[in-house]
Amino acid sequence: MSASGADGHALFADLYELTMLQAYSDEGMRETAVFDLFFRRLPPGRNYLLACGLSDALQYLETLRFGEDDIAYLRELGQFSEPFLRSLLDFRFSGDVHAVPEGTPVFPNEPLLQVEAPLPEAQLVETFVMNQVHFQTLAASKAARVVRAAQGRTVVDFGLRRMHGTDAGLKGARAFHVAGVDATSNVLAGKLYGIPLAGTMAHSFVQAFDDERDAFRAFARSFPGSILLVDTYDTLEGVRRVIELVRAAGDAQLVRGIRLDSGDLGALAREARALLDAAGLARVEIFASGGLDEQAIAELVTARAPIDGFGVGTHMGVSEDAPSLDMAYKLSSYAGRGRIKLSPQKSNLPGPKNVFRTLRGGRAAGDLIAARGEAAGGRPLLVPVMLRGRRTEAGAASLGDARRRAREELAQLPGDCLQLEAMEKAYPVELSAALSTETEQLRRELRTARSAVATPRREPS
Amino acid sequence: MSASGADGHALFADLYELTMLQAYSDEGMRETAVFDLFFRRLPPGRNYLLACGLSDALQYLETLRFGEDDIAYLRELGQFSEPFLRSLLDFRFSGDVHAVPEGTPVFPNEPLLQVEAPLPEAQLVETFVMNQVHFQTLAASKAARVVRAAQGRTVVDFGLRRMHGTDAGLKGARAFHVAGVDATSNVLAGKLYGIPLAGTMAHSFVQAFDDERDAFRAFARSFPGSILLVDTYDTLEGVRRVIELVRAAGDAQLVRGIRLDSGDLGALAREARALLDAAGLARVEIFASGGLDEQAIAELVTARAPIDGFGVGTHMGVSEDAPSLDMAYKLSSYAGRGRIKLSPQKSNLPGPKNVFRTLRGGRAAGDLIAARGEAAGGRPLLVPVMLRGRRTEAGAASLGDARRRAREELAQLPGDCLQLEAMEKAYPVELSAALSTETEQLRRELRTARSAVATPRREPS
Repeated sequence: MSASGADGHALFADLYELTMLQAYSDEGMRETAVFDLFFRRLPPGRNYLLACGLSDALQYLETLRFGEDDIAYLRELGQFSEPFLRSLLDFRFSGDVHAVPEGTPVFPNEPLLQVEAPLPEAQLVETFVMNQVHFQTLAASKAARVVRAAQGRTVVDFGLRRMHGTDAGLKGARAFHVAGVDATSNVLAGKLYGIPLAGTMAHSFVQAFDDERDAFRAFARSFPGSILLVDTYDTLEGVRRVIELVRAAGDAQLVRGIRLDSGDLGALAREARALLDAAGLARVEIFASGGLDEQAIAELVTARAPIDGFGVGTHMGVSEDAPSLDMAYKLSSYAGRGRIKLSPQKSNLPGPKNVFRTLRGGRAAGDLIAARGEAAGGRPLLVPVMLRGRRTEAGAASLGDARRRAREELAQLPGDCLQLEAMEKAYPVELSAALSTETEQLRRELRTARSAVATPRREPS
Repeated sequence: MSASGADGHALFADLYELTMLQAYSDEGMRETAVFDLFFRRLPPGRNYLLACGLSDALQYLETLRFGEDDIAYLRELGQFSEPFLRSLLDFRFSGDVHAVPEGTPVFPNEPLLQVEAPLPEAQLVETFVMNQVHFQTLAASKAARVVRAAQGRTVVDFGLRRMHGTDAGLKGARAFHVAGVDATSNVLAGKLYGIPLAGTMAHSFVQAFDDERDAFRAFARSFPGSILLVDTYDTLEGVRRVIELVRAAGDAQLVRGIRLDSGDLGALAREARALLDAAGLARVEIFASGGLDEQAIAELVTARAPIDGFGVGTHMGVSEDAPSLDMAYKLSSYAGRGRIKLSPQKSNLPGPKNVFRTLRGGRAAGDLIAARGEAAGGRPLLVPVMLRGRRTEAGAASLGDARRRAREELAQLPGDCLQLEAMEKAYPVELSAALSTETEQLRRELRTARSAVATPRREPS
């Protein structure tokens, strides 16, 4: 079920992962490291993100291997030692992963995932794990907004053609489905993931016939109960031709709906609805597409445009208003000692952690980021999904599980979180006193060390 | 050399491509169709785009096949006829493709590519061809701006971790290289495409040691002549530690450079330069990264910040300010007759076309979009890259060819085109009189037809 030739490919990595690996090897540094994957800030307009991408990250960790030809390529680069290159043939990921399940709403500085493994293993996997979780979280988070805006109306993913490459098209369709999108036009995603497929017809189909009526008739003959695209030449004229076709056939089920793809969608939907209703075709649905995003959908829904479903393409597909997240994969512990960096605006929290979410009256009331072992109230969001290189049961959650979780957990968020604009203090996230104290102490130590002539070395506890 | 498991995969398509194929089949519609791939508008701030992605599009067309399991999946959907499904096993792309070579600057409404094939073949390939050419053109166009801003300083692609999935990471690295980016951190792209690799070290490496000095010493021991990352705790203190290390070793070649990744890069570069120069390390280079895009680089270059190279990640990787293009794949001819749509702001130009570029004094002076056979001045940009399903020599251009072409043709663009802001009338693109006339005549015919009670059918010429 691999959707991409790069899955499990150990060379899908930044060069520095490999040079660092050789340097770790030269220094004999193989003690346990903990790396956190988290995001620092919400993109503009967002009050939460929806975690996604864990499944592909775990599949990669399970299958990660260097092939002989990879080693041969690295040898050509002329910068790696022969013993190091030979050692890569035995490279396996043998560590543990704690993560929030896919479909969980998450907030800044909360680890989505913690990798705990011998330092070289935890280091190498950075690039692939981030590549997948970053994009899929981005895509799921955007789609959750679109679904919210549609207020129960059907949403179909039309993004494939303008998404960034093949992998984005496939993994994106999956992420959209996690976030509540009903179906996709992406046939391969349907096959790989079991996502329901949907589609209508293209302008080219209409244009290939000399008469729009012939195009409608031919398509309805091949696929009775379809959705016909009416805006190739003149939208309302197209609607009249659909009505004419249904009448001539004397079969109200011949056409399921029409699609509007240009112009003033709200006004056209109203006029089309009036024409259809007047013709006794109240059951024929109206489907809209064409440059839609959550804002445009919210406006159409607020204006009570009679639209039954939305085809959403490019804007959702590339997360147009926020095509990247400020996500990072940072070392938080090595050899039992908490590790942070002090770079301005780019610091992190030390050690193995968990996030505890408190519910009050069925609503999420706030999160506490704490050390993993701390006795904190609330439900711990991170669970073991991989132990000693093998997925746990929690790590084998299905796409359906993720979709159900997203629906349930989004419904528990406070109303402010679900707004399409950024809200002040939409959701409280706090640091535990113990974690704050540890972080402050480490900062003090590092600041002292950097101005000292020599740094006292602390042995790992 | 497949970078993605979806290459050549016939199910990498929108569902409607397949339903339309069955309807075409039911109607016996197999005459020659011409489809144009073009973009309607430039994204904000752009004066041109750089065409890229043709190589992967052609590889797909050559290898396009339905497998038995694809047919089995489509059968499960319950909407296709058995004869149609069986016919898919023999499906091949047997048509011609005319295209502008990769690395060619292009403008709105100019076809980047024209597919000419029996209607079902030309229709099915829409999704994959657009998915590849859209993203790679987007990526190359963004990277050309970054390279321009860097004014000859080294630019390295650091985008992999936050690009949209694996395929974008690989194809993007290739597109960036076409546009003039010097190297990539992406090891698999280096292996697949022969792009030079570059990399430094991560904060995690520094953090894993109890003392920053030990980290620098260890890395320089394993990789003499490297670039050391100095901002983990305190940038200028990090620079001093690098100087200390080089002095203690008595080897000026031990460290090639330092990398700044946070804070005020211009000010820090100046202070770092002063420290290095005062220590007699004028040959140690300064490399900058951290949220850079073409605007930030242009400001640093204009301010004469002493930076020798830039690592550019997310903003270039996702084309942050313009993550999609208004690109379309539209039927322009079927059965020898020009075809257009009339949808508002979404029209197209009929028939096989070419773009003729006029040079004056070594500079591109303007383009003319004309019918393919028209006697027009200037160099025709579209050339046959595939004939009867096989690549021509022009269709087998290498990555090196594309990179050379981009360099040469960008150098020929008028200065206004190369500005980082959108310029009024930066480049003149005109329609030939014959093409204008044909388009207007078709529009008139279609407008008449849509208001007539019955449309006179014209047989294909």
